[in-house]
Amino acid sequence: MFRDLVVKNRSYRGFDENCRIDRETLLELVDLTRFTAASANLQPLKYFVASEKEIVDQIQPLTKWAGSLSHLNLPYPGTRPTAFIVICQDENISASVGMLKDVGIVAQTITLGAAEKGLGCCMIGSFELAALKKLLNLPEKIEPKLVIALGKPAETIVLTDAEDGKTTYYRDEAGIHYVPKRKLEDILL
Amino acid sequence: MFRDLVVKNRSYRGFDENCRIDRETLLELVDLTRFTAASANLQPLKYFVASEKEIVDQIQPLTKWAGSLSHLNLPYPGTRPTAFIVICQDENISASVGMLKDVGIVAQTITLGAAEKGLGCCMIGSFELAALKKLLNLPEKIEPKLVIALGKPAETIVLTDAEDGKTTYYRDEAGIHYVPKRKLEDILL
Repeated sequence: MFRDLVVKNRSYRGFDENCRIDRETLLELVDLTRFTAASANLQPLKYFVASEKEIVDQIQPLTKWAGSLSHLNLPYPGTRPTAFIVICQDENISASVGMLKDVGIVAQTITLGAAEKGLGCCMIGSFELAALKKLLNLPEKIEPKLVIALGKPAETIVLTDAEDGKTTYYRDEAGIHYVPKRKLEDILL
Repeated sequence: MFRDLVVKNRSYRGFDENCRIDRETLLELVDLTRFTAASANLQPLKYFVASEKEIVDQIQPLTKWAGSLSHLNLPYPGTRPTAFIVICQDENISASVGMLKDVGIVAQTITLGAAEKGLGCCMIGSFELAALKKLLNLPEKIEPKLVIALGKPAETIVLTDAEDGKTTYYRDEAGIHYVPKRKLEDILL
């Protein structure tokens, strides 16, 4: 059932580094985005896929993970992602900020597709933009909007009900990651 | 397979008005969004669900469909959606424009969930904001960001490959709706 896939699709910040992801798998995930809704059907989003260890290891230090647990410097050495997909907006096609909706649409599609394959992802909105553009040698007006890290999940995530509107995620001593989600009654108008 | 669901999940602009959608079904779809990734886990998105004919019929004229086919005034009378989900941003929690990514994430999740149920949706980014806020009697700082129309699909949509970067959708004399999507090679960096 689709609901099971949505629940399975967690934001992972620890991976099995022995499990590499090949370029073909990343292309299958990007291909899914071709069939998603697009604002005015403009489709300004383009994708840099990184599966080779050399480039993956260069992207990793430019990404900033888990702002609420920044003291942990996640992901820990030895548990880093083994692939990245960088979602970029081709501003020659559209420079509209509204395309951030499209970014979310395709990002959710990619991560659900990855979850079906037994992979885990983390959407990363915080990264060193200028350095990333330089590293990926992106043409002018190709603007990275979201980085998706991928790998074989190697951590435990537990969803909880958010109480009193508190949604900050946290970890216990065993490293289990807890994510408070608002209850249905709290998100209905 | 998830890919089949993504392909099935088209943007419909014509529905069977005899097929009503009950509130429980809409709540199941909104409930899916509780399990999606959220920027910094803030979850500022809230949902107005409309299943009663009276309110659905009042929302409909405030929405603007299919900008590239505006002369057709879609959806045609007798083929209008039978439900709406209005995705709003609670700016008391976050007023960041970056939350548009979250809007896309939840919208894609809702429409995929609807597709699994045999329903069809259309994400509508163009609507009469002030009138909609007034109609729904939204509290201050609850800002509609995207309207999802839902119904039982009653039209045929055909995906084609975009040639020479032309992505404008169109209809033939039989009313079949064609949607050119960029090829994989054209969206890879």
